[in-house]
Amino acid sequence: MTVKKRKSLVINGPNLNMLGKREPEIYGPLTLKDIETLTNDLCEHLSMDITWFQSNHEGAIIDRIHKMKKEKWDYLVINPGAFSHTSVAILDALKILSIPIAEVHLSNTYSRESFRHTLLTAQAATIIMKGLGIYGYAFALNALVMK
Amino acid sequence: MTVKKRKSLVINGPNLNMLGKREPEIYGPLTLKDIETLTNDLCEHLSMDITWFQSNHEGAIIDRIHKMKKEKWDYLVINPGAFSHTSVAILDALKILSIPIAEVHLSNTYSRESFRHTLLTAQAATIIMKGLGIYGYAFALNALVMK
Amino acid sequence: MTVKKRKSLVINGPNLNMLGKREPEIYGPLTLKDIETLTNDLCEHLSMDITWFQSNHEGAIIDRIHKMKKEKWDYLVINPGAFSHTSVAILDALKILSIPIAEVHLSNTYSRESFRHTLLTAQAATIIMKGLGIYGYAFALNALVMK
Amino acid sequence: MTVKKRKSLVINGPNLNMLGKREPEIYGPLTLKDIETLTNDLCEHLSMDITWFQSNHEGAIIDRIHKMKKEKWDYLVINPGAFSHTSVAILDALKILSIPIAEVHLSNTYSRESFRHTLLTAQAATIIMKGLGIYGYAFALNALVMK
Amino acid sequence: MTVKKRKSLVINGPNLNMLGKREPEIYGPLTLKDIETLTNDLCEHLSMDITWFQSNHEGAIIDRIHKMKKEKWDYLVINPGAFSHTSVAILDALKILSIPIAEVHLSNTYSRESFRHTLLTAQAATIIMKGLGIYGYAFALNALVMK
Amino acid sequence: MTVKKRKSLVINGPNLNMLGKREPEIYGPLTLKDIETLTNDLCEHLSMDITWFQSNHEGAIIDRIHKMKKEKWDYLVINPGAFSHTSVAILDALKILSIPIAEVHLSNTYSRESFRHTLLTAQAATIIMKGLGIYGYAFALNALVMK
Amino acid sequence: MTVKKRKSLVINGPNLNMLGKREPEIYGPLTLKDIETLTNDLCEHLSMDITWFQSNHEGAIIDRIHKMKKEKWDYLVINPGAFSHTSVAILDALKILSIPIAEVHLSNTYSRESFRHTLLTAQAATIIMKGLGIYGYAFALNALVMK
Amino acid sequence: MTVKKRKSLVINGPNLNMLGKREPEIYGPLTLKDIETLTNDLCEHLSMDITWFQSNHEGAIIDRIHKMKKEKWDYLVINPGAFSHTSVAILDALKILSIPIAEVHLSNTYSRESFRHTLLTAQAATIIMKGLGIYGYAFALNALVMK
Amino acid sequence: MTVKKRKSLVINGPNLNMLGKREPEIYGPLTLKDIETLTNDLCEHLSMDITWFQSNHEGAIIDRIHKMKKEKWDYLVINPGAFSHTSVAILDALKILSIPIAEVHLSNTYSRESFRHTLLTAQAATIIMKGLGIYGYAFALNALVMK
Amino acid sequence: MTVKKRKSLVINGPNLNMLGKREPEIYGPLTLKDIETLTNDLCEHLSMDITWFQSNHEGAIIDRIHKMKKEKWDYLVINPGAFSHTSVAILDALKILSIPIAEVHLSNTYSRESFRHTLLTAQAATIIMKGLGIYGYAFALNALVMK
Amino acid sequence: MTVKKRKSLVINGPNLNMLGKREPEIYGPLTLKDIETLTNDLCEHLSMDITWFQSNHEGAIIDRIHKMKKEKWDYLVINPGAFSHTSVAILDALKILSIPIAEVHLSNTYSRESFRHTLLTAQAATIIMKGLGIYGYAFALNALVMK
Amino acid sequence: MTVKKRKSLVINGPNLNMLGKREPEIYGPLTLKDIETLTNDLCEHLSMDITWFQSNHEGAIIDRIHKMKKEKWDYLVINPGAFSHTSVAILDALKILSIPIAEVHLSNTYSRESFRHTLLTAQAATIIMKGLGIYGYAFALNALVMK
Repeated sequence: MTVKKRKSLVINGPNLNMLGKREPEIYGPLTLKDIETLTNDLCEHLSMDITWFQSNHEGAIIDRIHKMKKEKWDYLVINPGAFSHTSVAILDALKILSIPIAEVHLSNTYSRESFRHTLLTAQAATIIMKGLGIYGYAFALNALVMK
Repeated sequence: MTVKKRKSLVINGPNLNMLGKREPEIYGPLTLKDIETLTNDLCEHLSMDITWFQSNHEGAIIDRIHKMKKEKWDYLVINPGAFSHTSVAILDALKILSIPIAEVHLSNTYSRESFRHTLLTAQAATIIMKGLGIYGYAFALNALVMK
Repeated sequence: MTVKKRKSLVINGPNLNMLGKREPEIYGPLTLKDIETLTNDLCEHLSMDITWFQSNHEGAIIDRIHKMKKEKWDYLVINPGAFSHTSVAILDALKILSIPIAEVHLSNTYSRESFRHTLLTAQAATIIMKGLGIYGYAFALNALVMK
Repeated sequence: MTVKKRKSLVINGPNLNMLGKREPEIYGPLTLKDIETLTNDLCEHLSMDITWFQSNHEGAIIDRIHKMKKEKWDYLVINPGAFSHTSVAILDALKILSIPIAEVHLSNTYSRESFRHTLLTAQAATIIMKGLGIYGYAFALNALVMK
Repeated sequence: MTVKKRKSLVINGPNLNMLGKREPEIYGPLTLKDIETLTNDLCEHLSMDITWFQSNHEGAIIDRIHKMKKEKWDYLVINPGAFSHTSVAILDALKILSIPIAEVHLSNTYSRESFRHTLLTAQAATIIMKGLGIYGYAFALNALVMK
Repeated sequence: MTVKKRKSLVINGPNLNMLGKREPEIYGPLTLKDIETLTNDLCEHLSMDITWFQSNHEGAIIDRIHKMKKEKWDYLVINPGAFSHTSVAILDALKILSIPIAEVHLSNTYSRESFRHTLLTAQAATIIMKGLGIYGYAFALNALVMK
Repeated sequence: MTVKKRKSLVINGPNLNMLGKREPEIYGPLTLKDIETLTNDLCEHLSMDITWFQSNHEGAIIDRIHKMKKEKWDYLVINPGAFSHTSVAILDALKILSIPIAEVHLSNTYSRESFRHTLLTAQAATIIMKGLGIYGYAFALNALVMK
Repeated sequence: MTVKKRKSLVINGPNLNMLGKREPEIYGPLTLKDIETLTNDLCEHLSMDITWFQSNHEGAIIDRIHKMKKEKWDYLVINPGAFSHTSVAILDALKILSIPIAEVHLSNTYSRESFRHTLLTAQAATIIMKGLGIYGYAFALNALVMK
Repeated sequence: MTVKKRKSLVINGPNLNMLGKREPEIYGPLTLKDIETLTNDLCEHLSMDITWFQSNHEGAIIDRIHKMKKEKWDYLVINPGAFSHTSVAILDALKILSIPIAEVHLSNTYSRESFRHTLLTAQAATIIMKGLGIYGYAFALNALVMK
Repeated sequence: MTVKKRKSLVINGPNLNMLGKREPEIYGPLTLKDIETLTNDLCEHLSMDITWFQSNHEGAIIDRIHKMKKEKWDYLVINPGAFSHTSVAILDALKILSIPIAEVHLSNTYSRESFRHTLLTAQAATIIMKGLGIYGYAFALNALVMK
Repeated sequence: MTVKKRKSLVINGPNLNMLGKREPEIYGPLTLKDIETLTNDLCEHLSMDITWFQSNHEGAIIDRIHKMKKEKWDYLVINPGAFSHTSVAILDALKILSIPIAEVHLSNTYSRESFRHTLLTAQAATIIMKGLGIYGYAFALNALVMK
Repeated sequence: MTVKKRKSLVINGPNLNMLGKREPEIYGPLTLKDIETLTNDLCEHLSMDITWFQSNHEGAIIDRIHKMKKEKWDYLVINPGAFSHTSVAILDALKILSIPIAEVHLSNTYSRESFRHTLLTAQAATIIMKGLGIYGYAFALNALVMK
């Protein structure tokens, strides 16, 4: 008897495609590609299909979330980047989903400018993780499975 | 002698393409396609050409509004969805037009979260309608004709 | 077999009795009486009894709303004028009713002073219409029938 | 030797005349008339003349308070309803009195909308009671006697 | 040849009917009646008909202002009392008039509670006078004649 | 047949242990001990066991509230003193209880500094009483029995 | 027997020296010199010595107010211009005086930018007059005599 | 050769000792003791000494954090409960430590009252985790090891 | 010996493609194309390669900025239009660059609506220029060379 | 003849027990013990009994202040640390005392986070000293003697 | 034929006289005198008379602006320094002028304290330039000529 | 061997020249001259040259601070009076100095109007002292020597 594998989508928002390509002494030398590989490795024991999507376009992220309704997904991990603070439209899109959602931020936004303290999209998430850096995605996927 | 038919564009913003596809017990079973048909039927007596456009991309909506300047339109109905609360850029685009504009919202946003009380784009509209649900577009088109 | 006619009350708040009597070049030459006749005509196809009430007294408007509980009304259209921004008491009175309510404003209040942006009474309405001028009442009555 | 009976006025503000006539499952089945009788009974031991006044008109409440200056009253209990949050004029009228005043609210307004947290009129009261429901008036009268 | 006498209306708002009847050591011993006589005397040289109106009812004040449109008035002096801080409806009524308006306050409201610093109705006035006490009305009438 | 006596706990927060020991001309000459005796006497007809607890330690108050869950209590009266304005932790502790709660304040806090207008803990109370001075506890216990 | 003449100082703040020299179609053709003459004429019946002082320097205005303590003055009229909104130092200087003070503004500042609604210096005045234009100084002097 | 085991302290703030003892249908049936056992089990592979501390006293939590400076700890996990929103003193205590800190919250506080949106203590944390319920502690410990 | 020419990118945000096509009496008759030519001419002496990019899509602007990291650019001039007030994502993208940036606005935004006073993206700029109209781009390029 | 020595209590709030034990390069190498000795030495000429008390517990500080009422103290110096910004309860306790109070802060809090700018407890102090570091206590004691 | 030379005044506000005399490693080694020479050189091609004025006195700056009305000036460049954030009086003075005005700031104030984000005086300017350092004046003069 | 004497400047801002000349029952009978003598006496042991400067002119205070750069000063004590709350320009001037600065206020400003709670200039001070009255200057000079 075969078990159906769980499927997870990981969405990364604006500027996250530049990881590893700017100020490596601050953000570390790993690219988003490297983080994907690292996450896939760290989640191997979950026997899970992990698909990655990145866009700097708010609309493209909304389109991708909508498409999830027609496809078969078990979990969503989203790092909305700066859209976390400004996009009511992504918040509304996330609310359409009925699967568990984890919102991930690489750093602790509480120690940055005040306009980064508002987290609009986080209102639609079950799980929120900040400050884990490159390990955030793997931890979020592991945590979603427990829900 | 033939009379030139009036032409109206109806723009729908983010997440409105998902109508009827999510929580039908709340938002009703009609899809945006159904609402278009319903609206066209209800406006038949206006002898009006109604064109429909939907996008989850703020930029695409701005592009569409700009294109209106070169084309021949008599009226614009816009339901900017969540962009109503956040997009100064769409407000600026609407201000370029010189035809009557109606802003439509399916529900009464005054009974929702406080960040939905600000209506930036509505500043460029002549007519505002909230809470008429699927009939909002037809009523807006009829009202614009009276202006 | 005869069908019972639907009954609607239209309440107008402070200063609306002065329509047509002040600055006709701005507010138009029609008096409230004229608008009543126009609305009745435009709603003839609804086969509806429409009763009109106007007062500059907040208390009188509350009394009138209370009286509706003992009478037989199907719909309420209310243009609270300036009371829309200041009267918690009218909001509470409207909440007592269990029929559909439409709040109407002649102009788009979003382009006026900031103390006109708050709409307390609108929280009790199903339908909100702004900027339709003299046609607002007729459109509101037609829209309520669809609810 | 006979003792002069103490005299109390109880003023109820807007919408309180509708008690028992709307949503009895929420506000209880007792009308304002019933509450008056209940309060009179519960205060029998105080040997006090209790007079009741209700109005939905801010001006009528102010007039009634003014009239108290010329008459002989020992205490005032007031439930200003929604006017509690908006009427500086009633606050000013209450300040003219020199007898003890109790402000009564049926429910705990701290668990409602934020515009109900401001209590303008309460600044003129000695005693404030919230959340006692139909017993609030009797408790307030008993408490005033202790002052 | 006879000259038509100028006609002025003086409107006093809530609680001003109690002048002289409360705390005479603070507000002085003069009643509103006394102030009317004093003002009439002080304005004798203006050869002006001065009519006095007082109400604690916002609606009655609005009605009185509306009636001015049909009558022949040259000037309006208004002391809106507490309504100055809360009544958008009176502000709107005043804006209907096209004669010069003076708003009078007995005391300097800048040294009182912060909710008395907002002056809504004053936006419709040409002249504002505060802190002149019983002489405010006479000075306002004299000033209006200069406009 | 014997009836089980009702049991009530009365919790007093910071600085209330100093009653009667400071500025007796303002706060009166009664100590907290005196008020306890007075309250017990005034509640004799309730046939109720009243236990008194006072602490200046937020944590000790939370511990005491938690202990109530394991014991048998019918009612809680709490005067959180200054903690009323600042302690989310006590609010959370109160929310754990499922018995009726009355919050008591000796004075009317609406006439004091603005940081005393926020009442966090009051959100968990059914009944709120302010300004009754030393009689507040007895009135609160009597009122709770009516609930 | 001779009566000592009353002495008044009139202080004008920044930019008022430019009256009549800029946009005469708005501010009128009269210079500050003209207004001084006009005021002196209009106050002739008061048999009062009126001295005029103008400065664009906050410090010079404070120095002038201080000097008043050593001299013999009966009244002060001050039009602080823009300093009215920003100068705590002038407010403190005015508080040192023990004679009646009138603050005058040429226009009704309630219809201008919001940073002009705060009137710091007015807290030290007995009388406030706005919107009387060139007649404001004369009216203020007449009013001060009544105090 | 033996490796020194890593040592972690887990601090729980107010009301967390009541887990499993109140509303188990909401917060789940597990007590804090159960969660400790669960966490210890889930972290067995980390070969880590985990010590648990809980207090409802802000001062006791500060004392405990101070004591860490003299002892040998590698990591701190803290769930400050309601103190997260109000305690500057705990924030200052946490800043004294030089080991990695994870702040854990059982639920997503962004969907609760606005006074729960401020996270003072989180400014001293490296890692923040919300909404993982009973698994939060184990995930936090695992994440700290990666730092 | 040949000198490498300096390369500059000029990015224009939403609605700037409509210059010259709307209200020429306000914004002038020049199209964006015309302004490009004018700027190129005015900068001829700089011997600089100037490339122009315009988009109404926030995402496309972010993509373009990212691409700059891989290409060889010396300077960036950006007129983010309305995105200046709302886009944290563009601010983050600009922060990735390490070349001098000038933000240009055609008009002085301080004399417009208050939501246009916040300049998020300007935080990443070295040079800010407002109100130079069509000459802003040329002046910005000249200024960047001085840095 | 012997003179009674003056007695002073010095109270230190949360985290001040850690002085000298953390980041000595910032806060200096002196422990609180050292500062006590230094202060005692610097105050020798005052011939004063100085008692020191430190606690991280808000409640313990309140208890200590209360105990002062029964004992014989001439002066209180308090450094409430972080409680300065959050404790209304300590403010109320300080107000019970009738001796002169000095509030001391080691650093200038105006150059730190905005939540450190509010000083609740300072409202009860006569003297406030900030930024004197380890000498603050000695200066405060010397200053109190002058009062 | 001779052409009349254009005349420009450059006003520098408080602390700008200290340029080059403080922290040269931050503000550069150039004095205000040096910058004047540099600017004159850079503007030689404009064939313009440039006059320089600096004062730390708000009143002196206002006096200087007023004097411009009587003289013959074509342009004004002003760097109001800190007065930019606080002086309504200078704003009013600038509004009297009818020549083009450029406001210059040496640095980008958007990256400094929040009280430096408000620019009162900038409301009277046509052109605003920030962050050009010592070249700002020359660029501003060149830009004014284009207006 | 002779030791160079330390030199201190003491600057007093607006209205402080009036000390002793107004309301001596409140501010005490000492003039500023008296306080200077008292301070000089109290600081005799410091063997310090103390120079006194007072002005009601913000600009004169800035000029005086600038002059300090060219002279030889060891310390600055400043009581900016009302300028403390409003002058960004003095704050900027103080920041130019590199000697220790003490800001002194005669009274505890935390118990006055809210516009006196902001202390702009205090951001540039090392030491802040409030409420010491006439002794503040001497204590500040002594404290500066310890720095």
